[in-house]
Amino acid sequence: MVEIRKEVTKGIWTIIAPTRGERPFDYTGKSENKDAREESRDCPFCPGNEEDTPSEVYSIRDENSQTEFSWQVRVFPNKFPALDKEGTSSVIESDLFKTMGGFGFHEVVAETPLHDVRLEDLPVEDIKLIIQTYLERLSAFSEHPEIKYVSIFRNQGERAGASLTHPHSQIMATTFVPNLVRTEIERTSSFHRAKGSCIFCDLIEAEKREGKRIISENEGFVTISPFGARFPYETHLLPKKHQMGFQEITEEETSLLADELKKTLTALTGELGDFPYNLVIHTSPQTRTESETEEYTYHWHIEILPRLTIPAGFERGSENFINIVSPEDAAEALRGKID
Amino acid sequence: MVEIRKEVTKGIWTIIAPTRGERPFDYTGKSENKDAREESRDCPFCPGNEEDTPSEVYSIRDENSQTEFSWQVRVFPNKFPALDKEGTSSVIESDLFKTMGGFGFHEVVAETPLHDVRLEDLPVEDIKLIIQTYLERLSAFSEHPEIKYVSIFRNQGERAGASLTHPHSQIMATTFVPNLVRTEIERTSSFHRAKGSCIFCDLIEAEKREGKRIISENEGFVTISPFGARFPYETHLLPKKHQMGFQEITEEETSLLADELKKTLTALTGELGDFPYNLVIHTSPQTRTESETEEYTYHWHIEILPRLTIPAGFERGSENFINIVSPEDAAEALRGKID
Repeated sequence: MVEIRKEVTKGIWTIIAPTRGERPFDYTGKSENKDAREESRDCPFCPGNEEDTPSEVYSIRDENSQTEFSWQVRVFPNKFPALDKEGTSSVIESDLFKTMGGFGFHEVVAETPLHDVRLEDLPVEDIKLIIQTYLERLSAFSEHPEIKYVSIFRNQGERAGASLTHPHSQIMATTFVPNLVRTEIERTSSFHRAKGSCIFCDLIEAEKREGKRIISENEGFVTISPFGARFPYETHLLPKKHQMGFQEITEEETSLLADELKKTLTALTGELGDFPYNLVIHTSPQTRTESETEEYTYHWHIEILPRLTIPAGFERGSENFINIVSPEDAAEALRGKID
Repeated sequence: MVEIRKEVTKGIWTIIAPTRGERPFDYTGKSENKDAREESRDCPFCPGNEEDTPSEVYSIRDENSQTEFSWQVRVFPNKFPALDKEGTSSVIESDLFKTMGGFGFHEVVAETPLHDVRLEDLPVEDIKLIIQTYLERLSAFSEHPEIKYVSIFRNQGERAGASLTHPHSQIMATTFVPNLVRTEIERTSSFHRAKGSCIFCDLIEAEKREGKRIISENEGFVTISPFGARFPYETHLLPKKHQMGFQEITEEETSLLADELKKTLTALTGELGDFPYNLVIHTSPQTRTESETEEYTYHWHIEILPRLTIPAGFERGSENFINIVSPEDAAEALRGKID
């Protein structure tokens, strides 16, 4: 049974999900012994193996497609979910042992029918379909009043926690707002109260003036090495226009985001090779009433978190970080890889 | 040049330390090709190789020792420090780009002359010497008014970020209080204001009443699987007596802590084998005036953070966690391994 528990001395919600430990790993040893085609025969995310996944909840299909595949993007519940879509969301209030039921949704987005491709090698149009899929699911979860936040992320490579190689993202719809997003919202809101402006908008302006941490930009988005980057080659993509939530993105901006994401990931791979990373979208919580929205401000963005070093006792004990590559050096190297 | 920078949207200080990337790793491939004795010839932390480390700053030597070794515990500056002991501690205040100089101390504690031993296999008396060494360094750094906090931690195993196998801990004395400790202090203080008691003391009482998350205890310390454990088999050792800072520990309690730590690590290794972990001491910041001390309350403790799963996009993006082993199951398994 899934339970969500708060460590009261740290104020952190943790999902206690014993069943999640049963999921398979296709890595250990296998990838060295099998070529991609052979491996894809067993891959539950590959076309033809749809019966190996829980029932599809969403897909993009193109009847006029010239390809052999029946779908382009496909979403289904995670077979080994960290959250329980049939669970309770009831909260047990307690000074010391605060608990929520394990209710929530945990889905997988098979991003492409192709088994062995990196995200940035897909055409911009295909990356756009993935982004549209995210938006579709974000919208679907807004129908559940208990869902407070939708985490959208992807893990690239075994060292980044990916248990299957087929390109996929994950979506977790939770009854709590993630710790780091809550912190960002609090800080953005308090900056807004003090200065009357959005801290992310101000950062974009300041970074453009300074120039040295800018990696790339297009009409809609700017890509930077953040000034206080926690990880070597940490990279953020921000919409230039002030938008609180990812769902505010327009059709045209979706194309621009796909373009910027492809460019950025291509530059990172150009510099770092087949590097492991996590990619996360930080967006505003699910809000339904105007008064809720008025209570805070935010500016959604994408964070690419490469996994080049191993966080050790200092990082795990402090939640501070040691970054061995200066953001300015990282930005300079990546600028050199932008077409 | 080391710089400490704040990511203003997250409020997190990160140490930007480009030189730190130059340190060696003795793992890749080596351990499989060399036996322990051969490896120790090249180990900078082994007796006989003292010249391979920066000059010793502290050691424990026993003139009457029956052993062949000239020292029992030895402390020296990290050859590849993340902090600069000759650096500045000056702060550049800025709304968006807040910076501190890289001033701080980064030391290594060679815990034993023995190259190839796990901490828990040392006699209690030897573990006590290591704890006494930590206390000695904590006291030494209290002479530096710029130092706000002393992080004491150890990394066990390559997967936990250890770059050398010889048993060692690290000490980082910083001009900022670590994020997680600051959070714990804020929460402990606010609980104290609301309830008039220490949240850690209350937790110890409540855990003893419930029993199911208690792993072990002795006269001075209790070892628990915390209710909201973030990691499988996360284990906390707490002093039963209310003590804000680690430096308040008595001589007798130091022996009791060594005993409890040996028991706990032995149980964890009994259950998990040669498992990788980080161990961190969470203690109160360095305070010098009475008014500073009166502003907050805290209860120092040790956290053992096993490294059995790979945190992925959800964890890195949210700073929340998914734990696939319930704390009650972990405690039950570990209780079964306590002598």
